[in-house]
Amino acid sequence: MTPLKLFVALSALSAASHAMAWDYVLLDTDKAAQNWQITSQQLGIKTDKPFSVTLRTLHGGRQEGVSIVDIDNGTMKLSVVPTRGMNVLQASVGNVRMGWDSPVKEVVNPSFIELNGRGGLGWLEGFNELVTRCGYEWVGHPGVDNGELLTLHGRAANTPANKVTLHIDEKPPYAITLRGELKEQAFKKVDFSVATELVTEPGSVVFALNDTLTNNGDYPKEYQALYHSNFSTPFLEQGARFAAPVKQVSPFNDKAKGDLPDWQTYRAPTKDYDETVYNVVPYADAKGDTLTVLHNKAGSLGVSVGFNTQTLPVFSLWKNTDTQGQGYVTGLEPGTSFSYNRRYQRPLNLVPTIGPKEHKQFRISYSLLTDKAAVDKALKQVSEIQDGRETEVRQTPLVDLTKG
Amino acid sequence: MTPLKLFVALSALSAASHAMAWDYVLLDTDKAAQNWQITSQQLGIKTDKPFSVTLRTLHGGRQEGVSIVDIDNGTMKLSVVPTRGMNVLQASVGNVRMGWDSPVKEVVNPSFIELNGRGGLGWLEGFNELVTRCGYEWVGHPGVDNGELLTLHGRAANTPANKVTLHIDEKPPYAITLRGELKEQAFKKVDFSVATELVTEPGSVVFALNDTLTNNGDYPKEYQALYHSNFSTPFLEQGARFAAPVKQVSPFNDKAKGDLPDWQTYRAPTKDYDETVYNVVPYADAKGDTLTVLHNKAGSLGVSVGFNTQTLPVFSLWKNTDTQGQGYVTGLEPGTSFSYNRRYQRPLNLVPTIGPKEHKQFRISYSLLTDKAAVDKALKQVSEIQDGRETEVRQTPLVDLTKG
Amino acid sequence: MTPLKLFVALSALSAASHAMAWDYVLLDTDKAAQNWQITSQQLGIKTDKPFSVTLRTLHGGRQEGVSIVDIDNGTMKLSVVPTRGMNVLQASVGNVRMGWDSPVKEVVNPSFIELNGRGGLGWLEGFNELVTRCGYEWVGHPGVDNGELLTLHGRAANTPANKVTLHIDEKPPYAITLRGELKEQAFKKVDFSVATELVTEPGSVVFALNDTLTNNGDYPKEYQALYHSNFSTPFLEQGARFAAPVKQVSPFNDKAKGDLPDWQTYRAPTKDYDETVYNVVPYADAKGDTLTVLHNKAGSLGVSVGFNTQTLPVFSLWKNTDTQGQGYVTGLEPGTSFSYNRRYQRPLNLVPTIGPKEHKQFRISYSLLTDKAAVDKALKQVSEIQDGRETEVRQTPLVDLTKG
Repeated sequence: MTPLKLFVALSALSAASHAMAWDYVLLDTDKAAQNWQITSQQLGIKTDKPFSVTLRTLHGGRQEGVSIVDIDNGTMKLSVVPTRGMNVLQASVGNVRMGWDSPVKEVVNPSFIELNGRGGLGWLEGFNELVTRCGYEWVGHPGVDNGELLTLHGRAANTPANKVTLHIDEKPPYAITLRGELKEQAFKKVDFSVATELVTEPGSVVFALNDTLTNNGDYPKEYQALYHSNFSTPFLEQGARFAAPVKQVSPFNDKAKGDLPDWQTYRAPTKDYDETVYNVVPYADAKGDTLTVLHNKAGSLGVSVGFNTQTLPVFSLWKNTDTQGQGYVTGLEPGTSFSYNRRYQRPLNLVPTIGPKEHKQFRISYSLLTDKAAVDKALKQVSEIQDGRETEVRQTPLVDLTKG
Repeated sequence: MTPLKLFVALSALSAASHAMAWDYVLLDTDKAAQNWQITSQQLGIKTDKPFSVTLRTLHGGRQEGVSIVDIDNGTMKLSVVPTRGMNVLQASVGNVRMGWDSPVKEVVNPSFIELNGRGGLGWLEGFNELVTRCGYEWVGHPGVDNGELLTLHGRAANTPANKVTLHIDEKPPYAITLRGELKEQAFKKVDFSVATELVTEPGSVVFALNDTLTNNGDYPKEYQALYHSNFSTPFLEQGARFAAPVKQVSPFNDKAKGDLPDWQTYRAPTKDYDETVYNVVPYADAKGDTLTVLHNKAGSLGVSVGFNTQTLPVFSLWKNTDTQGQGYVTGLEPGTSFSYNRRYQRPLNLVPTIGPKEHKQFRISYSLLTDKAAVDKALKQVSEIQDGRETEVRQTPLVDLTKG
Repeated sequence: MTPLKLFVALSALSAASHAMAWDYVLLDTDKAAQNWQITSQQLGIKTDKPFSVTLRTLHGGRQEGVSIVDIDNGTMKLSVVPTRGMNVLQASVGNVRMGWDSPVKEVVNPSFIELNGRGGLGWLEGFNELVTRCGYEWVGHPGVDNGELLTLHGRAANTPANKVTLHIDEKPPYAITLRGELKEQAFKKVDFSVATELVTEPGSVVFALNDTLTNNGDYPKEYQALYHSNFSTPFLEQGARFAAPVKQVSPFNDKAKGDLPDWQTYRAPTKDYDETVYNVVPYADAKGDTLTVLHNKAGSLGVSVGFNTQTLPVFSLWKNTDTQGQGYVTGLEPGTSFSYNRRYQRPLNLVPTIGPKEHKQFRISYSLLTDKAAVDKALKQVSEIQDGRETEVRQTPLVDLTKG
């Protein structure tokens, strides 16, 4: 892999000021994924801690041929899976792990998954990531809509990316950007492409996703997106808390009604709990930005998930506090939509349309909150966004699931 | 890849006269596809223009691992996809392209396609070829027949070929023959093999398919075949015309009734047009050969599709003159059958049977008509086959689709 | 592949006495399958006949990327397919072949199979092995149970194995052990792993499977297993016989009723016979071990299939004596269950449960009976296990298949 030194415009506002940057093609039509690594030392970059990006391929079982990009920014280690929709498999800082322990231990090549199996739940045979992209034709529970079985949470997570590239800024803070494109295309049905982008900086405990959905077709199309962001211990524990600026919260279904008073706190791993889900309409600041926080009981460790509500107006809180083996996990899920089947979401105005050649950007940032000060600061931000505005706690689900 | 020089009998009639030939195995059980090329220069052949055959593999996205064979006969460039049923992806002469622009941009590895998805329309997630083989257990629209969901147009296009070989005659005109075998096998269900063959000659603007379906089983079996041959600009345009010797034409469905008077002419790209389909029973000459022609409005450029009606007795004209982005394309589709679900075609006697160990040959030739003289000559041939015989324009579809 | 010489405890009872052994990793997360061979000569082992183990990869068609492990123990040649559930493709001693001729000629990569296709019969597109693992979430005919379509015979046969290892004892009889792990995992659904093991000894005409199913989950789960062991000529022929210590036999369905009086003898290849199946409850010895025998008409050649009834309490005799081309084959199938859809087997108490972290072992041994003496000896064992106990010949199927 030859490093290409390119002059890249850093911003549209300063097109005249150019900076050097390193750009690498990791995977392309004429370039097979192969073991490869680049380090800050090789680039002659001096940062507090050296960083590196590594490409490797998994073998054996249902993970045969799966590519993984490991980004070690010196502080945070991230693993991204080009073969699975550029999903973020996990991230960690020291021994603090963002992510969870799914029963699914392999990083499963989509070629071995039938999304239409198990009545449209085949997706569950590969689900184990920290961030799993859901969409973009649809998200939500399986079910028939317009005469077609929509499988759980769409196809994005099981769509391998093409043209995966790595970009490293050549001046401080030496931002590291990994890009991969997903194509959701079917004749007569859909012509979407999703330019995914993951950005982190050397030494940082933050990473951000910046995805651009494009409707390449000539017709407006319905679309949905949901970023299934999943955390477990050490954040999730008995007494852990969730915070967000909330305009409205409601139980996803009848089961979630019972725990509604405690929707912002978590149980210990609980046998037979299965899951409860709460639908949240968040408040945002003037720019549409909002912040959600998960922290441990002591408030000494947490994560925040920030996103822009202009394109991701709603949020699902998935509380799967069942046993460790079954999957002790909570999902913080910004989306265009909740997790109902698409046919239920049209009446809620949560099935937006993207015009021909139109773009939609989805920006989500994930921060590790490493100590009480960081947690408190994030909670303060939440509070500032809420700004004293009222929260409607709706007692009944938005959707009557007993009706087809 | 070592060139094997073999003595090959050129014909059964002259078994005594042998000619040299070059034979190469491109892909086999013990031979992985790998980048490779042979050129006329390497073979020491002097033709007006040099020719070459190239094998390459695609990477990234849903096209990971797809093999492509590029044949450049000196005049026409052809791309064949062993991984997708030996389909012809595209052909071109100079800047004249046979083929079309599907929203599906990748050459999709069947391992990433669920034909049973989208209610049996999963096939649409990979459809983008100039010639897509449909069959051979069934063709037609998805639907249940004999208690089984038949997915759109069968499995052939999503069946990777094994034992792909290249044969180049060692004497003029140095015919280039690419062969690949498709196996459609399922215990208790079917034991078909299809020996596919694509032939072209250096400098020619013609290529031909010569496929042999064999029922290896001990029982007679129903089969169907349809060669979905798809063209767009520069042939397809407002005022472009289709010509064929027609015994009977009928609208595929109620929608096609409205445009029946103009069934042989084409619209410009038309928003919300979707498609109309016309079912054609062609006349043929004494040997069963017939010819169909598509040409531009000026009659200065066209393509002809010739086939033998003994095994391909009917023809579908698919007019998908929707917008460019949606897919502005027309299909000239010789077949054993029309595009109805198999259960509708039995009463039409369009579900033939192949006996145990029996072979069926399907021969289709594709010619670029590079100028008005070539178009006129082809139209004259059409006229000679019609030979003044009557055309029945049937006003109503052959099938009442409102009945199960 | 570097041979690792390890000290391995030969048994828990003699942990103090260690023996040398050779251990090789053939396939693992960070180790791609590649052509490789080890021979007894290379190991410096002197056996009557040299033995070898070979790893190879198939290419082309639907078998692209399939790994095969060939074990030649000097007398018996075995082929195992890691990519297909560690199934035993075939075994042979000289020109005597254990296995059968399926219409499916390729060793099909599961990535090209939709188990949910053909109404849940997609499994038939890959079925051609001597031993096909069925299970472990379910076995049996396709059908809806608990609202989910269970596809034919479960997913094991189409689950590629990870971490495939070879172990050769360093002291006589130099047992050769091939291991591979199957993961059947889906969030919320199942967390099984199956440690498969195939053992043979140099010069032997026997091989054994020793599989351990583990429920890694926190909840008890239903499971089913069935070892679909398939034989044809030279054992199967007109007048060939099946013997077993039988407590109860019953016809699988109405069709099998007619041939019940002759259930232990076989027909010649018979046009339109299709199949009959008999459900057998075997007697076993005090340890639970039982033996079933298939031998030719002359009683001069046979195979025996032994298994332990503590985990495999029932047995299906599948008599598919249709034509050679259709598949002339009989299945000797030890199982937890018969071949009905799971919903029919609960009332029969044939859907066992495996507790959290519990293991279930399945042991099956396959012996070639090379002459009359060997056949007679096996039949004597069958008789000794029967030990004069009564056989109930039940005239009607255990399940009324006309009821949902």
